[in-house]
Amino acid sequence: MRIARFAGPDGAVGFGPVEGEQVVDVSARLTWPELLADPAAARSGDPRHAVADVAWAPPVEEGAKVVCVGFNFAAHAAETGREVPVRPTLFTRFPDSFVGSGGAVVRPPESEQLDWEGEVALVVGTVGRRIAEADALGHVAGWTCMAENSVRDWQLHSGQAVAGKNWEASGVLGPWVVTADEFGDRPLAVTTRLNGDVVQHDTTDHLTFSAAALIAYISTFTTLRPGDVVALGTPSGIGFRREPPRFLAPGDRIEVEVDRVGVLRHTVVDDLVPAALGAP
Amino acid sequence: MRIARFAGPDGAVGFGPVEGEQVVDVSARLTWPELLADPAAARSGDPRHAVADVAWAPPVEEGAKVVCVGFNFAAHAAETGREVPVRPTLFTRFPDSFVGSGGAVVRPPESEQLDWEGEVALVVGTVGRRIAEADALGHVAGWTCMAENSVRDWQLHSGQAVAGKNWEASGVLGPWVVTADEFGDRPLAVTTRLNGDVVQHDTTDHLTFSAAALIAYISTFTTLRPGDVVALGTPSGIGFRREPPRFLAPGDRIEVEVDRVGVLRHTVVDDLVPAALGAP
Repeated sequence: MRIARFAGPDGAVGFGPVEGEQVVDVSARLTWPELLADPAAARSGDPRHAVADVAWAPPVEEGAKVVCVGFNFAAHAAETGREVPVRPTLFTRFPDSFVGSGGAVVRPPESEQLDWEGEVALVVGTVGRRIAEADALGHVAGWTCMAENSVRDWQLHSGQAVAGKNWEASGVLGPWVVTADEFGDRPLAVTTRLNGDVVQHDTTDHLTFSAAALIAYISTFTTLRPGDVVALGTPSGIGFRREPPRFLAPGDRIEVEVDRVGVLRHTVVDDLVPAALGAP
Repeated sequence: MRIARFAGPDGAVGFGPVEGEQVVDVSARLTWPELLADPAAARSGDPRHAVADVAWAPPVEEGAKVVCVGFNFAAHAAETGREVPVRPTLFTRFPDSFVGSGGAVVRPPESEQLDWEGEVALVVGTVGRRIAEADALGHVAGWTCMAENSVRDWQLHSGQAVAGKNWEASGVLGPWVVTADEFGDRPLAVTTRLNGDVVQHDTTDHLTFSAAALIAYISTFTTLRPGDVVALGTPSGIGFRREPPRFLAPGDRIEVEVDRVGVLRHTVVDDLVPAALGAP
């Protein structure tokens, strides 16, 4: 089952199951965390829209914890010159750093180093702290695709990645969450395409830290709640490590495909708001 | 003027101005961001409690952005063996990593390296993106104290500090926010006391990146909204850099005093919840 957040024909954000070519909006009755706990919550009286009439919103709400992991595919650790890590390398993203699939990410005027990072991400469905690795997948509501794009020069301004990982509207999540019951133990392939050409491809059996291991580690120090997101890391093949480097520019089209989830798509635009916003 | 969040006699969290020995609860009429924009919002009909009857809650709500900066006092950068940085070293904390002043922080069973970090923090009052440094202080609603305590071994598990900076209930914010109109251009002294002894002391004229510079830098990539928090960094004198190191343990009492704000106080307790929480 697919569930999604979307902007409806009137522009208001709703969420609910995706049923064929329709989306159901249960947001008048349920919260997003409640939907994650009960994805089959659609009723006959709920508003419906044609998929063609909505814009996907990222399946993450303001205030959710979004935890990402660096260097988690061994081949990507190698391309960045790092040893395979002993502990997960975690960083966080603010939810407003993401837009929905089908939209455009914003290349800021302050950098020409917006880079792609295709990933698979999980959405938490059940609250937990100090979750045992053996129990961890039981806390997953479902899986989605992430374009965990990074502004490389700002990422490297200091030893901490925050400033390169949190540019507003620089990443993409979605287009929807496929519920965990549709996944078994088989590894998931993650593929990133730039203008149709495969630039990243790997499978989750090559992760240093599995989804379950990450949930166990993260929940040791912080409670994971329904709606929180954990991204599993990006395969090798980022633009920054090409020779010469290749960064995203207006006109580029990125696709991130994850087995059994689907395809996330985005374009790139330049930020058209150079002036200060909200001067007091 | 002081404004605060607090748990009232019935345990419910409210917020409003602190007037002498009373707190006013405006939470039935206003949001916390609305109060930050209009701290003089108390009316005669609002519920009031004696300060003695409330417990301070941290002046940050779930979902707010909390951005901290490392090595921002030159003497602290030196004690960690670092050069004075050219760009701010940013990391983030989840709001649930803080408790209110007067409470106890939790030393987790997974580490014996819970360390103190006294800081001054600002609370954003006016939304902004790409805020010019010259305009930045106009976006500050007020100032508060932070015990930005860190779990050192987990902080050093990887190159990213997240896992050591986000332990639930490991830090403290408060006890209140003193509105920006009570501050001029004079530097603020920040003092941390451990069981009554001064362990950290410095003044904000020794910051590498001023509050205004940090607001300008952070808001370059992300919108700062009312209620978001920026901490300015800790002076030298952390326990980890003592010889031998000295970490927090149950029974310890920490005070963080900031000029014109007041004194944040906390104790330390061991985590009494070793079992997994919320197994599905």
